[in-house]
Amino acid sequence: MTRTIRMGAGGEFDLIRRLLAEAPESLSSVLVGPGDDAAVLRDGWVVSTDLSIEDVHFRRSWLSDIEIGRRAAVAGLSDLAAMGAQPLALLLSLAAPRGDTVDVEAVVRGVQAAAAEHGIAVAGGDLSRSPGPLVLDVVALGCADWPVQRDGAEPGDHVWGTGTLGAAAAAVRLWERGEEPASELRAAYATPRARIAEACCLVEREVVDAMIDLSDGLAGDVGHLAAASGVTITLEEERIPVASAAKDALTAGEALSAALHGGEDYELCFVTDPDVVDVEEFESRFGVPVTRVGSVAEGEGVWLERADGSRERLERGGFDHWAPPT
Amino acid sequence: MTRTIRMGAGGEFDLIRRLLAEAPESLSSVLVGPGDDAAVLRDGWVVSTDLSIEDVHFRRSWLSDIEIGRRAAVAGLSDLAAMGAQPLALLLSLAAPRGDTVDVEAVVRGVQAAAAEHGIAVAGGDLSRSPGPLVLDVVALGCADWPVQRDGAEPGDHVWGTGTLGAAAAAVRLWERGEEPASELRAAYATPRARIAEACCLVEREVVDAMIDLSDGLAGDVGHLAAASGVTITLEEERIPVASAAKDALTAGEALSAALHGGEDYELCFVTDPDVVDVEEFESRFGVPVTRVGSVAEGEGVWLERADGSRERLERGGFDHWAPPT
Repeated sequence: MTRTIRMGAGGEFDLIRRLLAEAPESLSSVLVGPGDDAAVLRDGWVVSTDLSIEDVHFRRSWLSDIEIGRRAAVAGLSDLAAMGAQPLALLLSLAAPRGDTVDVEAVVRGVQAAAAEHGIAVAGGDLSRSPGPLVLDVVALGCADWPVQRDGAEPGDHVWGTGTLGAAAAAVRLWERGEEPASELRAAYATPRARIAEACCLVEREVVDAMIDLSDGLAGDVGHLAAASGVTITLEEERIPVASAAKDALTAGEALSAALHGGEDYELCFVTDPDVVDVEEFESRFGVPVTRVGSVAEGEGVWLERADGSRERLERGGFDHWAPPT
Repeated sequence: MTRTIRMGAGGEFDLIRRLLAEAPESLSSVLVGPGDDAAVLRDGWVVSTDLSIEDVHFRRSWLSDIEIGRRAAVAGLSDLAAMGAQPLALLLSLAAPRGDTVDVEAVVRGVQAAAAEHGIAVAGGDLSRSPGPLVLDVVALGCADWPVQRDGAEPGDHVWGTGTLGAAAAAVRLWERGEEPASELRAAYATPRARIAEACCLVEREVVDAMIDLSDGLAGDVGHLAAASGVTITLEEERIPVASAAKDALTAGEALSAALHGGEDYELCFVTDPDVVDVEEFESRFGVPVTRVGSVAEGEGVWLERADGSRERLERGGFDHWAPPT
């Protein structure tokens, strides 16, 4: 039976929900349908597609052509990480603006570089000129014996995040102000990593009840976990691992907002039983921090618990997908 | 070992060749890499991606939104047919122009309709607004016990085509002249069918040495077969099944050119030993004609043998991908 996952708030998700409400439930080849980070097909195959569109997901003035390709591929690989899947291959569809302003070879080399970092290759794709902006669609194919979905969070569980958050969004905010971000901020945006090894290790240990990657921002992505699982999640302000470089470059409120709503971090957010994650062992093994950021309870929606004990409901928003004014 | 397929002439193919020349040869999960209609991965999985870009592959004034979606999906499914693969699922990435001029729901419903025609579903995808034209990228996933490639044509083989050719290109030519094509021409362009059943039947009978779908035009696509197989293919002018509606609407030379170079037919071209195809049985079973269009010999390139016995070399060209002036 196909499982269709409930999604959190957001206009894009409303549309997907509506469009796919009547997706066939009985197709044996589709085990997990629309709404999760990736589709799960028979034989444990996991497949995602991820669009990267110039002037929506990136600006060409912010990134080199090779970084554009690599970053688009990391976004696709990150979807596999969110399912606890091992990558098998990428495919790339690329619509390149007419004229010679984009170095298509460099873009493809960036995609190939991201694939090679995970021991896989670009197995095919499509290539066309376009009268519009540069568009990449990265298809990530992987496999998972036990794909992790978004709907397994249970009251009493703990919510965790890898890495630090908000640096990529801080870079975007600075570029939008006409300022050049510090190298650490720029690197967070331009050269993210997909947390494949971390995810697969967590899944092997059978400690993960639900998982998602932080592409849209912690608040929105945790909202998807909460909606899919039918629970409420409370994030604790003091526990959120706001990147220190983001704190240095922005006000405290802006830095927190970047971590909550900024997106583009490509870190993992996962949910476990209490006290099953060995924080020190994780950090020494992967060189990446892991932080408990909140907890799961009965109810719905996402809340932020402030340092003074007050609570506020988090609505999805912010600048998860940067977009110029229409 | 990964097999990388040689491609025929064309700038796009030169670029793909160059980009992917260094694709890893030793990845066990990729059995057929870039250059065929689709990639073949382990477990017999077959995957293709197919871009459909407004003002490159179609004009919105030519098609309804649902036809845009269905046609893009048929193009993807046709890649599976070319490999002799059974479809398992589609994924759809859709970049929609800002504003409300495109009915995104209708486009998605068109993709879903094409999937449903083959008993499969849209299992996922991505959706984004874009400052540019409507872009669809359809990912077609299928499986094949014996995927058919382009490189199996041998001297002495016969070359076959399904259906009739040139009607879709004739519709495009008429639209470009500001004329409205007859309904049969319009239907050929707007509502093609992927020849999945035909392809799978041919493959089950083990008669096919090489196969490709006619998306770029008979001359160009046969050129890919010839290049991949290291042979020459001669097409016989009098055998080419030029669609009668194309002959009615265009001059004889234009209609032949539409069949040879027009593309967008999504018929199959396949290569067999001599005298193994039962033409009458095929036509009565599928309601689609099948025609021997030429033969294979030692050498390279594609030739057209005229009715008077003269031969001319066919260069790839024509209006395989319709594109407005830059």
